[in-house]
Amino acid sequence: MQQQLTEEKVFKDPVHNYIHVQDVAIWRLINTVEFQRLRRIRQLGTTYLTFHGAEHSRFSHSLGVYEITRRIISQFERSKDSGWPKEERMVALCAALLHDLGHGPFSHSIEEAFQMHHEEWTCRIILGDTEVNAVLRQIEPDFPEKVAAVICKTYDKPIVINLVSSPLDADRMDYLLRDAHFTGVNYGTIDMDRILRMLRPHDGRIVVKESGMHAVEDYLMSRYQMYWQVYFHPVTRSSEILLRQIFRRLKELVTQDYEFKFMLDPIPGLLAGNLSVKEYLMLDEALIQTSFAQWRNEKDSVLSDLCSRFLDRRLYKYVEIENMDMGMIDEVREAFLAVGLHPHYDMEIDFPTDLPYDVFRPDGHSTEKQILLLDRHQNVREISEVSDIVRSISGIHRGKYHMYFPHNKVEAVKSRLPAEIRQLFDK
Amino acid sequence: MQQQLTEEKVFKDPVHNYIHVQDVAIWRLINTVEFQRLRRIRQLGTTYLTFHGAEHSRFSHSLGVYEITRRIISQFERSKDSGWPKEERMVALCAALLHDLGHGPFSHSIEEAFQMHHEEWTCRIILGDTEVNAVLRQIEPDFPEKVAAVICKTYDKPIVINLVSSPLDADRMDYLLRDAHFTGVNYGTIDMDRILRMLRPHDGRIVVKESGMHAVEDYLMSRYQMYWQVYFHPVTRSSEILLRQIFRRLKELVTQDYEFKFMLDPIPGLLAGNLSVKEYLMLDEALIQTSFAQWRNEKDSVLSDLCSRFLDRRLYKYVEIENMDMGMIDEVREAFLAVGLHPHYDMEIDFPTDLPYDVFRPDGHSTEKQILLLDRHQNVREISEVSDIVRSISGIHRGKYHMYFPHNKVEAVKSRLPAEIRQLFDK
Amino acid sequence: MQQQLTEEKVFKDPVHNYIHVQDVAIWRLINTVEFQRLRRIRQLGTTYLTFHGAEHSRFSHSLGVYEITRRIISQFERSKDSGWPKEERMVALCAALLHDLGHGPFSHSIEEAFQMHHEEWTCRIILGDTEVNAVLRQIEPDFPEKVAAVICKTYDKPIVINLVSSPLDADRMDYLLRDAHFTGVNYGTIDMDRILRMLRPHDGRIVVKESGMHAVEDYLMSRYQMYWQVYFHPVTRSSEILLRQIFRRLKELVTQDYEFKFMLDPIPGLLAGNLSVKEYLMLDEALIQTSFAQWRNEKDSVLSDLCSRFLDRRLYKYVEIENMDMGMIDEVREAFLAVGLHPHYDMEIDFPTDLPYDVFRPDGHSTEKQILLLDRHQNVREISEVSDIVRSISGIHRGKYHMYFPHNKVEAVKSRLPAEIRQLFDK
Amino acid sequence: MQQQLTEEKVFKDPVHNYIHVQDVAIWRLINTVEFQRLRRIRQLGTTYLTFHGAEHSRFSHSLGVYEITRRIISQFERSKDSGWPKEERMVALCAALLHDLGHGPFSHSIEEAFQMHHEEWTCRIILGDTEVNAVLRQIEPDFPEKVAAVICKTYDKPIVINLVSSPLDADRMDYLLRDAHFTGVNYGTIDMDRILRMLRPHDGRIVVKESGMHAVEDYLMSRYQMYWQVYFHPVTRSSEILLRQIFRRLKELVTQDYEFKFMLDPIPGLLAGNLSVKEYLMLDEALIQTSFAQWRNEKDSVLSDLCSRFLDRRLYKYVEIENMDMGMIDEVREAFLAVGLHPHYDMEIDFPTDLPYDVFRPDGHSTEKQILLLDRHQNVREISEVSDIVRSISGIHRGKYHMYFPHNKVEAVKSRLPAEIRQLFDK
Repeated sequence: MQQQLTEEKVFKDPVHNYIHVQDVAIWRLINTVEFQRLRRIRQLGTTYLTFHGAEHSRFSHSLGVYEITRRIISQFERSKDSGWPKEERMVALCAALLHDLGHGPFSHSIEEAFQMHHEEWTCRIILGDTEVNAVLRQIEPDFPEKVAAVICKTYDKPIVINLVSSPLDADRMDYLLRDAHFTGVNYGTIDMDRILRMLRPHDGRIVVKESGMHAVEDYLMSRYQMYWQVYFHPVTRSSEILLRQIFRRLKELVTQDYEFKFMLDPIPGLLAGNLSVKEYLMLDEALIQTSFAQWRNEKDSVLSDLCSRFLDRRLYKYVEIENMDMGMIDEVREAFLAVGLHPHYDMEIDFPTDLPYDVFRPDGHSTEKQILLLDRHQNVREISEVSDIVRSISGIHRGKYHMYFPHNKVEAVKSRLPAEIRQLFDK
Repeated sequence: MQQQLTEEKVFKDPVHNYIHVQDVAIWRLINTVEFQRLRRIRQLGTTYLTFHGAEHSRFSHSLGVYEITRRIISQFERSKDSGWPKEERMVALCAALLHDLGHGPFSHSIEEAFQMHHEEWTCRIILGDTEVNAVLRQIEPDFPEKVAAVICKTYDKPIVINLVSSPLDADRMDYLLRDAHFTGVNYGTIDMDRILRMLRPHDGRIVVKESGMHAVEDYLMSRYQMYWQVYFHPVTRSSEILLRQIFRRLKELVTQDYEFKFMLDPIPGLLAGNLSVKEYLMLDEALIQTSFAQWRNEKDSVLSDLCSRFLDRRLYKYVEIENMDMGMIDEVREAFLAVGLHPHYDMEIDFPTDLPYDVFRPDGHSTEKQILLLDRHQNVREISEVSDIVRSISGIHRGKYHMYFPHNKVEAVKSRLPAEIRQLFDK
Repeated sequence: MQQQLTEEKVFKDPVHNYIHVQDVAIWRLINTVEFQRLRRIRQLGTTYLTFHGAEHSRFSHSLGVYEITRRIISQFERSKDSGWPKEERMVALCAALLHDLGHGPFSHSIEEAFQMHHEEWTCRIILGDTEVNAVLRQIEPDFPEKVAAVICKTYDKPIVINLVSSPLDADRMDYLLRDAHFTGVNYGTIDMDRILRMLRPHDGRIVVKESGMHAVEDYLMSRYQMYWQVYFHPVTRSSEILLRQIFRRLKELVTQDYEFKFMLDPIPGLLAGNLSVKEYLMLDEALIQTSFAQWRNEKDSVLSDLCSRFLDRRLYKYVEIENMDMGMIDEVREAFLAVGLHPHYDMEIDFPTDLPYDVFRPDGHSTEKQILLLDRHQNVREISEVSDIVRSISGIHRGKYHMYFPHNKVEAVKSRLPAEIRQLFDK
Repeated sequence: MQQQLTEEKVFKDPVHNYIHVQDVAIWRLINTVEFQRLRRIRQLGTTYLTFHGAEHSRFSHSLGVYEITRRIISQFERSKDSGWPKEERMVALCAALLHDLGHGPFSHSIEEAFQMHHEEWTCRIILGDTEVNAVLRQIEPDFPEKVAAVICKTYDKPIVINLVSSPLDADRMDYLLRDAHFTGVNYGTIDMDRILRMLRPHDGRIVVKESGMHAVEDYLMSRYQMYWQVYFHPVTRSSEILLRQIFRRLKELVTQDYEFKFMLDPIPGLLAGNLSVKEYLMLDEALIQTSFAQWRNEKDSVLSDLCSRFLDRRLYKYVEIENMDMGMIDEVREAFLAVGLHPHYDMEIDFPTDLPYDVFRPDGHSTEKQILLLDRHQNVREISEVSDIVRSISGIHRGKYHMYFPHNKVEAVKSRLPAEIRQLFDK
């Protein structure tokens, strides 16, 4: 059963102006408990502590991804013989909309701390006993499985996977535009209309007409700039490190049978690593922040200090380390220990390229991460073969080591640190 | 002690591009616990349930108000003999920045439910035992009192009060621009640069050069549109009504000595109406939302239903009532009672002009709410004497009654309602 | 023969992003000599002398009007049973595109000076021996007549006329947005997407869904502001007055059999009032400006001075006249004559509402100038019955008298003017 | 004599919002005949034939360059000990404003055809018997010489030259932003505010604080994209080629003592290469276009055809030539001759990088073309040493050969061309 709404509904959106909903099922999915929960999870985690405008939610972004996908499909449908399989429209729209359904609060840090993957949770929610599952099942009995297959990249029509997840997909286009709009960092502005106009289904995947090459170059450069200006900003990293340390401390305290004054479900399950879908869906930023606020009063001073730091934005300072060597880090740890600092909580090394770094890099072995250009003779070539710009930047491997530390604590003991250690903090 | 930073600091802002901080004290105020708390309170309360982009915080807005004030003063300082008292710069900047410090979570609803006023809390925080107070006291021992006096409009230099609070102040200019940017509703775009260029200190207040009249007309129209498009949007009103009902139910339950499964400080104090400054500062949206999430499991079904509705955005529906009469409302209440609905929770009448409606209206008795134009002969006239547009719109008194109700519950008993009541819900 | 292009063509446009051409005939019309000539005629005449960005041509605007019309029709076509007569698509698109084809250079001034009407010329060009005519005739033998009938409002399907020419038509929407973009005056920004979404064919005309009322209010206010900020700006009026005087002088000189050193076809025909279509099409701004440049060297000093003033932007100054009376003007004229000034060239009275003032005014007798709202019961009401704002502003009748004069000349003789005349110029 | 205006004057600008004039001399320079002439010369020459929005004049751009320079200086003046020589303010502002004063109509083509340089004409106008010269001389007797020296890069304070002309100067920043705004191609949007904030006078030149590196990378990428998307667009090149051919034909006809039906001063001087300053200032686009319009009727069909093509936008088509060899071009020429085409007018090879290509390239021998970064230890490094992006793209040497030809003429004889030539045109 795939029904149209009697009258199209719209959401006013600051990025796409209007988001158009034409299908009963999409409207119902948006109104499920699980999708509404995304309103309580910020798109950019702790980035609002660096760029105060970045307070937008995954709810907004998910609507945006849906809308871009809708526009692409509607364009494919308008041109005859485009090669787009029309019967896949609804599965693609649902997958686009639900793509990020499994994100938890501050998910980068939580996923890292608890070895979870939001894609997996997305599929568990879609396939579990949820309102989303019920809506999908009304479309077709095996529709939840289909949507999950697209998201997990096992669906048997690669073009649908490609539409929802590729180096030039609706997800990436929306977040670049949206994060630029909300942070105010204008490097993210891309000519989306032009890119959309240039997309073509071809041989079971989405390619770009060669005349759209410059728009793609510009998109890749925007992405590069947004990564280094916004996503990997050292102040944001500093707040992520605080989160990481809070979760690390919680796990330690649990191991030590520490008695928490305050502990709310489903956090024990999170710490134990055995959350059910139902419990997982109880997690949101409000619960995390409220717990932090309560833990300010815990007698464990490591935890209470970290929580206060996070809420009051007393972030760790950082210095860049030009020549990284592990020996030196050990020396710092020892020196810290000698003067009464905590070697695991009062110092942290960070190297952002450890994160999934998805600035586009052509990759000989898989076409999944490639952007393909279609020339006027219908030949397909990987973009870095054609674009000087993309070839130039695709080899760039970048990243800097930063050492993070609580400035007030280090300052207090600085005179007692060995000179060669002290000078590291002297910038 | 009024110190400059050795190097200006900036915040990237999507509305003003950069927010410039030049003074040590401003920098320190921003970093206080009390000011950082504003990050956890949305500027537009529940509006994000209508316009999903409206997720920006009072923190962003407060920085914006500060920045506009800084620009106005800096312009006054550049022109000789402008009549602006230069020694008032810092008190004006601090008052602009801290203006909204006393806002709580969802403050329209909470203030209404508990008879509180955020201005009062702002002054209590500034004058109390807080970090903000300590930073201000470092400037001058009586600086907190001065800043509070500006905010409470008792300061002895009316021009400073006028700068921070008037029908054309930095507060209103920032929120129009910011709310427009985040909701995507472009009616809020005003030519702020032109308005700022046209402001002049004159005879102890801020007036507008006559050549800026059209920019002011446009600003007033933008304000009018934003009120009716955004601030009084019936869907937003519907979510405020849910909040109002939740707080009403909580108070009832407290009176009945109901035993809550979950109750976190300082909510009992809030319900009892005896919060200290310290407790008040513990209130944020995270705490409210987390409480609502927990109360989903309370055995009181009125409370648990209302909390679920709020979190899952199962808002009340509404119908417009063209000819309002109180007798009819009583009839509805009785009919509801007769079919088992709750006359206080399952129906609510709303008339938005009950809210402070601050679309500009000239008022013969006070100049505080007037916008004055300065002509080339240095004569001052109230704008509606000069502007046809302002005169035309200033008489408009507008507002519509809406009746809100839980659609599913009313639907279930509709056939048992008297026909003349039933038809009210038949649109 | 109505053919589609094998591949859609686009024009990059700063206002609508892309202008989409899908039909062979539209593509050919754009490439005709007559349409390309619109590149040499500025949209806003002499406004660039006030707002330097206003250098955009009627070519750009015509493409914009076409594009908006295309979007409206395509939306009508997407909804079933919309009541839009699908077979009228091409005639509507052609009329939208060619609507301004008959504009000449600086057409306000030239039309006034020579009693011409651009609509009439548009129809003469469409029906004459032109490339445009040939392209239209290829569609259908009587297509030129149909398109001309739409433009001249005699077409037998009122809905098509209504689409192309009404108080809320594609013409007005494009010029507000475009003139705002190019001048930089942001009052012109309207929410076009929302207005388009709200348009409905209904009973043989285009109406607006009631929920679009606020967007229409905003549009009418934008129009009002653009009129007074841009279109009637006194500096622009001053440059129009120079043009008017140049043309007046030319006609006088022709009457006096003055021998011009320089005179280029088709200007003699223009002055004589007997231009053929072919000659009319030779008129463009380049020809007018080049003639002015040459006439700088004419021995008639009135003409040469006026031409230099125009090219070098030595505009007349102006004073506002608060209480206009004709007697006073006569006195000024006499006083000017007495001190050797030219009473017809050195003074000019202007009252902008003499111009066609198309800010919307409801008019009981004709529905052509009305904006109609469609409520949810399918009832139609004129907007000022429903909107407080529109009702308030629709009664405003505004306009100020200005006296324009060459500042240097008046200054030179000022001491010899009678005191009561002199003080008029003393501001 | 350097006087301030009693009240600042502003120009409304779509790019910088307002352009602020504070000095009497700047105001007078803008009002000179020579500066007003820039209104009649488009900033981007024939680009409006490709991007119809590109109708903005050099007048607008010159005001923009002045405004950016004013902002930079005003920022330097605000910070103490900035190292900026305050007494150079006026000379820098005048040089910025007058920088492009010597541009003629369609100057790329005219300069190429007649071996002229606009910088030289700028200096001749500034030093000649002109209104500009008179205004400058009022400031100081040798002020014209100083301003000319800055523009010709012989001034003895390199920092002033550097401000007005460098890889990161006000000229380039304005044209990127302005050309982006008017064409609608958004690749040109740069974060100018951030770049301005990062500029520092240092050791007699302007450098960029290291923390502005990403903004500079983005600026260089924008420049690169604008070059290839807009400035070197093959359709624009095609219209430049028409101009080139028209001027070439005119010179040939003069050599042959051809008798023109129409010839207006100062074109004979232009063709003879002996224009005076006074004559040069008579050149504008109106005069060129009017001449073209008249030459449509010349009996020389080469000239009349080229002029019609230009005015009616019947541009030459083009094909890309992948492997360029000169032998092939000779063969095409011969084949054209054999079938009656004109080998010099009916075919033209173009290679855009032959044009001054000012995408930034570091150059070991001169620091003039370098962008220098200033790190926190006050060390200066050339940007490509620090930025991976700049290093990557600075080696790109790009450019493609295109062959241009009149499609209709070649089509007519195509069957008679040798097969290997014919296939060149078969794409």
